[in-house]
Amino acid sequence: MPLTITNHENRRTTAPASSGRRTSVIVAGTKVARNPNMAKLQAGYLFPEINRIKNAHLAENPDAKIISLGIGDTTEPIPGPIVAGMVDSAEGLGTLDGYGQFGGYGAEAGQGRLREKLIERFYKDTTSIVTDEIFVSDGSKCDISRLQMMFGGGRNVAVQDPSYPAYVDSSVMNGQTNGFDDATKQYGNIEYLACNAENAFFPDLAPAKKSDIIFFCSPNNPTGAAATRKQLEELIAHAKETGSIVVYDAAYSIYISDPDCPRTIYEIEGADECCIETCSFSKYAGFTGLRLGWTVVPDKLKFADGSSVRADWSRLMATCFNGASNVAQAGGMACLSDEGMAAMTDLVAFYKENASILKKTFEEMGYTTYGGTDAPYVWVSFDGRDSWEVFTEILQKCDIVVTPGSGFGPAGDGFIRASAFGHRDNILEAAERLKKAFTK
Amino acid sequence: MPLTITNHENRRTTAPASSGRRTSVIVAGTKVARNPNMAKLQAGYLFPEINRIKNAHLAENPDAKIISLGIGDTTEPIPGPIVAGMVDSAEGLGTLDGYGQFGGYGAEAGQGRLREKLIERFYKDTTSIVTDEIFVSDGSKCDISRLQMMFGGGRNVAVQDPSYPAYVDSSVMNGQTNGFDDATKQYGNIEYLACNAENAFFPDLAPAKKSDIIFFCSPNNPTGAAATRKQLEELIAHAKETGSIVVYDAAYSIYISDPDCPRTIYEIEGADECCIETCSFSKYAGFTGLRLGWTVVPDKLKFADGSSVRADWSRLMATCFNGASNVAQAGGMACLSDEGMAAMTDLVAFYKENASILKKTFEEMGYTTYGGTDAPYVWVSFDGRDSWEVFTEILQKCDIVVTPGSGFGPAGDGFIRASAFGHRDNILEAAERLKKAFTK
Repeated sequence: MPLTITNHENRRTTAPASSGRRTSVIVAGTKVARNPNMAKLQAGYLFPEINRIKNAHLAENPDAKIISLGIGDTTEPIPGPIVAGMVDSAEGLGTLDGYGQFGGYGAEAGQGRLREKLIERFYKDTTSIVTDEIFVSDGSKCDISRLQMMFGGGRNVAVQDPSYPAYVDSSVMNGQTNGFDDATKQYGNIEYLACNAENAFFPDLAPAKKSDIIFFCSPNNPTGAAATRKQLEELIAHAKETGSIVVYDAAYSIYISDPDCPRTIYEIEGADECCIETCSFSKYAGFTGLRLGWTVVPDKLKFADGSSVRADWSRLMATCFNGASNVAQAGGMACLSDEGMAAMTDLVAFYKENASILKKTFEEMGYTTYGGTDAPYVWVSFDGRDSWEVFTEILQKCDIVVTPGSGFGPAGDGFIRASAFGHRDNILEAAERLKKAFTK
Repeated sequence: MPLTITNHENRRTTAPASSGRRTSVIVAGTKVARNPNMAKLQAGYLFPEINRIKNAHLAENPDAKIISLGIGDTTEPIPGPIVAGMVDSAEGLGTLDGYGQFGGYGAEAGQGRLREKLIERFYKDTTSIVTDEIFVSDGSKCDISRLQMMFGGGRNVAVQDPSYPAYVDSSVMNGQTNGFDDATKQYGNIEYLACNAENAFFPDLAPAKKSDIIFFCSPNNPTGAAATRKQLEELIAHAKETGSIVVYDAAYSIYISDPDCPRTIYEIEGADECCIETCSFSKYAGFTGLRLGWTVVPDKLKFADGSSVRADWSRLMATCFNGASNVAQAGGMACLSDEGMAAMTDLVAFYKENASILKKTFEEMGYTTYGGTDAPYVWVSFDGRDSWEVFTEILQKCDIVVTPGSGFGPAGDGFIRASAFGHRDNILEAAERLKKAFTK
């Protein structure tokens, strides 16, 4: 709750005359005004907020065996060949040679060998993307806020609705938006592009005709929808027509099975002139805690004055970032070896089977579901019910944490997101509890 | 060099009539305006720029055996007990238990055990700082730009001159400054607080009377000066009087020997009402490539409206950051064990002996030096000569990279910074080469 003490009252008081002498006492409070953009932010960031509610539930029900289908947090151990790469790296840092090679400050854009390997594994056959256009980082979420810093304040932003909350929250913090409207549950000056069953979760792009930046996530978090080639061609045509830049979040790309859905936006012609793509090892190899991702900024992408977006990004990364942790980068290298790629494929298949179990469960319970086939998320319709209410009911009746759909934007209301990250026995147990409590 | 093509020309051209049909061809260029703050930045960030020059020198002199006393990059292997902590952590991530404990998303503010241990080792006896006020991160440089994002644009910033370039560059990017003035070598709307031999490298603070944010680094990078208790009391009194916030960079604090120089700003009464302190494992344990630091935001620190700076920082970290790499955090825990603390002490003593060798060398050569006793940097006066010219001469004559003083700000001109991070034989060899070429 904001204090209403004025600056003057807050900063300096005078001790009571009865103390015998008048002493000027400074009592907290600086003269530095709070950033008005920070003040616009609503409540806490979604996932810490959910965690807080979960902990309150646990405090009241200390014996509850909570199962989390909430935050998309990986649960399975990191596969052996990838661990081995990291152990080698850590041991190497204890030697003169190893430290000399990878111990000190690395390139802000990442180790050259890792950037090359990323090209070879994910970009070689489909696009013109080259090593210099890959920037390794500590993850997509971090890159998103740095991208905002590069763009600067006062841009027109469009997001899918629902969408990953970091797009909107970082836009608010960076001054792209007006205040929050309690009636619409939207911030002013952001285009919320509704994604729903009626449009097969691909939005009408027309309202984004004045947007500078369009955040687009496929496979989508939270709806689980993977965009088809035709849909992505429409997205690129829109961006080229309106002159906007698409920030394409491909963090779940490895979960795509449908051959009609591209795994990188650069499969689409012209995307290298209007798209930045960000991706991550988090959900590929269980690197959520290790922090490793990458962002592609093509050389052909230019600002209106013809200047290079990549050059500004490179300058910003050198100033605000110091490279991803070298042990995590060694882990990334191991992920991209033949054994690592095979291990990641197995891991992703495991989580996708979880998704399939959850999807089937909700359907057998009588609910309509979306996603869960090309993404680790199942998007479940609760027939228009308030999604925080559903979230609470599921927590109270089943000791299961899901994510309320409206936490991802107003168009997410009526839905919950079930995450497929979990041990198999927990997923099966969750399915049982849900069936008991919620079958229609 | 900035292109001058207009938006219209750049975005759409029409194929020549001779081609038989008029086709509208889109040729790169979005409509998105370049961030004018990015455009204000001069050249590249200092250290990549120096690296570029070094590489050009190597291309022309392929047999040159370059010794770097340039960027402050650690060179010695990470001590055994700390490596062991990281190896254990990496191996643990391959097990169900280990992954369950530290594998997934961690708290954005860092592992609780690490935050507690930081208090115990560095803040317990001297201040009121508690665990909740410690935020673990991927390093001070990264935190500095996030702090700028939290403060928002349009603040009045003061820096020591010379100073670590990230303070000024991140201020420019964040819109705190006007353009660069070629005559003064300063950006508009930044107070450059000159630190020189005349003021014993502690600046006159009076010009910062309207500053919202004062960046202050002790032991100083680049001058090597460690501020005394009395000087820091003056700094705090100034901040309290003017209502400003000090961002106190203590990244080299462990190098302090002088008992009259505090190792944390929170030894000074009242600092918890006006100071944020940032620190790092980089120069403590050779973690430059591992990426681990921390920032202290005391609960008592308030914006002018009485709202909590810590609350905004916490919200920002949850939105823009996802925690430091778990293996690096395990390394941090190992650093703070008894064995780790002893190993860090040895490592720091080794680098300080390097500093002592360099300092003595320059003095024997007839130059006046500063720093090098409470910091890993020796600040050498070249009698008012242009410091890029000196830098170039040292590179060409000795195949040694130093850092030109003016790279840290205009008051640094006439000086070079010699970094004490290096293998002993390289330091000794550098000393020989310098003596031969530059003895007065």
